[in-house]
Amino acid sequence: MSKTLFFEKKGPFPLTEIIKNIGFIESSINQNIISIHGFEPLNRASINDLTFLNSIKYKNISLKTKAVACITTSNLSKFLPSNCIPIVTKNVLFAVTKVAKIFYPTADLDLPDENLSSAEDVSKLYTDVKFGKNVLIGKNVKIGINSNISSNSIIESNVVIGENCTIGSFVLLRNSLVSNNVYIQDGSKIGIKGFGFIPMQDKNLRTPHVGKVVLEDNVEIGANSTIDRGSFTNTVIGKNTFLDNQVHVAHNVQIGKNCMIAGQVGFAGSTTLGDNVIIGGQAGLSGHLKIGNNVKIGGGSGVVNDIPDNCQVMGYPAVLLKEFVKLRKKI
Amino acid sequence: MSKTLFFEKKGPFPLTEIIKNIGFIESSINQNIISIHGFEPLNRASINDLTFLNSIKYKNISLKTKAVACITTSNLSKFLPSNCIPIVTKNVLFAVTKVAKIFYPTADLDLPDENLSSAEDVSKLYTDVKFGKNVLIGKNVKIGINSNISSNSIIESNVVIGENCTIGSFVLLRNSLVSNNVYIQDGSKIGIKGFGFIPMQDKNLRTPHVGKVVLEDNVEIGANSTIDRGSFTNTVIGKNTFLDNQVHVAHNVQIGKNCMIAGQVGFAGSTTLGDNVIIGGQAGLSGHLKIGNNVKIGGGSGVVNDIPDNCQVMGYPAVLLKEFVKLRKKI
Amino acid sequence: MSKTLFFEKKGPFPLTEIIKNIGFIESSINQNIISIHGFEPLNRASINDLTFLNSIKYKNISLKTKAVACITTSNLSKFLPSNCIPIVTKNVLFAVTKVAKIFYPTADLDLPDENLSSAEDVSKLYTDVKFGKNVLIGKNVKIGINSNISSNSIIESNVVIGENCTIGSFVLLRNSLVSNNVYIQDGSKIGIKGFGFIPMQDKNLRTPHVGKVVLEDNVEIGANSTIDRGSFTNTVIGKNTFLDNQVHVAHNVQIGKNCMIAGQVGFAGSTTLGDNVIIGGQAGLSGHLKIGNNVKIGGGSGVVNDIPDNCQVMGYPAVLLKEFVKLRKKI
Repeated sequence: MSKTLFFEKKGPFPLTEIIKNIGFIESSINQNIISIHGFEPLNRASINDLTFLNSIKYKNISLKTKAVACITTSNLSKFLPSNCIPIVTKNVLFAVTKVAKIFYPTADLDLPDENLSSAEDVSKLYTDVKFGKNVLIGKNVKIGINSNISSNSIIESNVVIGENCTIGSFVLLRNSLVSNNVYIQDGSKIGIKGFGFIPMQDKNLRTPHVGKVVLEDNVEIGANSTIDRGSFTNTVIGKNTFLDNQVHVAHNVQIGKNCMIAGQVGFAGSTTLGDNVIIGGQAGLSGHLKIGNNVKIGGGSGVVNDIPDNCQVMGYPAVLLKEFVKLRKKI
Repeated sequence: MSKTLFFEKKGPFPLTEIIKNIGFIESSINQNIISIHGFEPLNRASINDLTFLNSIKYKNISLKTKAVACITTSNLSKFLPSNCIPIVTKNVLFAVTKVAKIFYPTADLDLPDENLSSAEDVSKLYTDVKFGKNVLIGKNVKIGINSNISSNSIIESNVVIGENCTIGSFVLLRNSLVSNNVYIQDGSKIGIKGFGFIPMQDKNLRTPHVGKVVLEDNVEIGANSTIDRGSFTNTVIGKNTFLDNQVHVAHNVQIGKNCMIAGQVGFAGSTTLGDNVIIGGQAGLSGHLKIGNNVKIGGGSGVVNDIPDNCQVMGYPAVLLKEFVKLRKKI
Repeated sequence: MSKTLFFEKKGPFPLTEIIKNIGFIESSINQNIISIHGFEPLNRASINDLTFLNSIKYKNISLKTKAVACITTSNLSKFLPSNCIPIVTKNVLFAVTKVAKIFYPTADLDLPDENLSSAEDVSKLYTDVKFGKNVLIGKNVKIGINSNISSNSIIESNVVIGENCTIGSFVLLRNSLVSNNVYIQDGSKIGIKGFGFIPMQDKNLRTPHVGKVVLEDNVEIGANSTIDRGSFTNTVIGKNTFLDNQVHVAHNVQIGKNCMIAGQVGFAGSTTLGDNVIIGGQAGLSGHLKIGNNVKIGGGSGVVNDIPDNCQVMGYPAVLLKEFVKLRKKI
């Protein structure tokens, strides 16, 4: 799948200017001459980039980062390579949000796409694509052959849709890469800004969302679902995974292949699923969890812990199915 | 209510060709000369139709089927009349899906309706019907007098809407029969393909959905709800039943009269409700359940068993209310 | 914020005519000469208005009402001032609904707004407002500078939107006052009629909804959410409160400032929240609850009781977090 850049990156900026903008920085190295070209996660940062480290969980990655500087806490700064300048602050997430807004000033809110055209006016750009009525298509949108876009839907600029896809009515696609044979049912909103912000008295500070949504081959998304794009990484739905109606997928969630997700299931941010996972209706998964392969989660469950491969869980909070059954009997 | 056929049925096909298409069939009768005109449920199949039997629950109906042949398992084949040829397979649902796709090749995915017109262009076909702006109307749509279709909504081909109905904005109606005095609030998607498929490695096999959604007199559907059409039978909402916002009704669900269903309730497939049922917000009902008349289900409950008439239940899993209260006290 | 009247009030009507319309009234005072100008809640009723009292909870307000007459029960009539005529009935809510329909005959159903214009045709009325494609704008809509209305959205008549607001695509705004810096994501339906009715055999009696939705400064509403307007009072989302995707807010709910409401949370009618409340995903709150300031509600909880300030709760039904943890350990 081709790479698409959905957000224009500003810069470069002198590191001094960035630090001034964050405020409350404890480090006092002379960074006058350093120019920062981008703001990237630890593993993707290159030699002219700034990065950030917020948890000891990532120390193995941070120790190998190529970034020239890293926003982090005093305690975590020891997990950086010696040639990476620590930018020490007490509130890493606040600083990260401020810096992301410098490089991506328009990614914290989804403004109207000003490059939408009526599909009738641009249909000659698309071979063997069927458009319904009142379809709006952005600039540089790619759509593969034998795909269908139903009436009243909006495909915003730079979105890529593969071959043999069917997009229902009233669908919004933004900041998304859609592979082949994907089916999105009516009313779903995909690639929207996630629910990320620094809570502040009277005016929260929104986190820029520069990630994408990636829908792999053969995925199905039910009606009136919502899939937020990633903040720094991507939100990914793996090959041949089917989601039912009214499913909510928060930013950075990564779902594996061949999963079945029933109606009204909700995923909080950054949770990852393996392959062949089955989730019953209305189950909810907390954020930052790791769910293994072949896991089965009963309908209505509330999952708050990681689940290893091949387990069946149920309950609120979810426990192993046999424990759940035992508990019910005991009661 | 008049009958409307939403899906073109292909055929007839020789039984031999059908069997070849399914593959893995264990029966070896010479069916060369038999021509199959349709594929219907046990009770609706007539003398030239193929049917299927998947559970001993339906033996009373299967013993009386008029179908010339029946897809079933080796064990269940004894519940067929002697003049009905058993087509024996280990995976009835897989075979059923394959056969349904032969007769209804376009019912497993909702392609764009290519016969939509702007309501302004066809409004002279409708007497005393009020249309908002940007309304799209399919071919052969019937709308009764004093009905209102609000802006940006889509009524797809062959849908029937009765008198005195009000359809909100951003509504999609497809494969549906809507009776009189029905009110559908903004953003609901009704008559869409359900979440039915045979899971297969890398490419699931979608179940054709040839059923309808039937909304009886005086029904109200809240905003941003989703109602899937039936796979073989219909999804039905009974007279004077009110659904709140963000309710999800899966395929083949049948809800009785005078029910009240609060916000964010979810129904899995093929569950049936009696009359006068009250369901609190966010409750979920598993599939294939039978809920009696006058049942009350507490908000947030997870119903996994049948409920007889006049019972009040609550909890996850839901139990009789007095048991729930006793349990809480004990704890 | 300026006042906007969304519903035309009929009247005045003679009290005798109103009483005749309700039927089954037990009072028999000669009200021939009394003319009723409006039907208002106890605290807002003035000397020519009719009001209603349905619960002893409101006796402090009812004792001070200025209304000339009050629909109430025999038992509650003693909580009225001596110059307020009690209109005694056994079913106050039924009578209230009947009277509300006399004064506001069009507020019990959202008919299509017949005054919508294409934004292109009316954009000269708006200074420094950016419109997407296919936007529909009603009569007397006010939109502040630097606001954005994305494609395919509908802003119905008399809605007020402040400065620096961003409205996503497929949004419906009706009967709403939106303050400054508000962000509404794609697909949300705001200001719609709530789920209120008197259940009646075969044909429920819908409650008129004459209230509004008020979104204060800096509010964010996630995608595909639904916010019902108030029935008599307003539905209010306080300053800087953020709601995630697929949240359902029923009529008359009042949410304080700086709250964070995660995805798929549901609020039943008339519940009030204080400031700084945090609610995890998929939690549900029953109706008519009072949730204090700084309360934290765990994801998936089912809240059925009031919660005092500064408490953390979890569970179904929700209990104090430390009780929940203790219970889990005991089990």
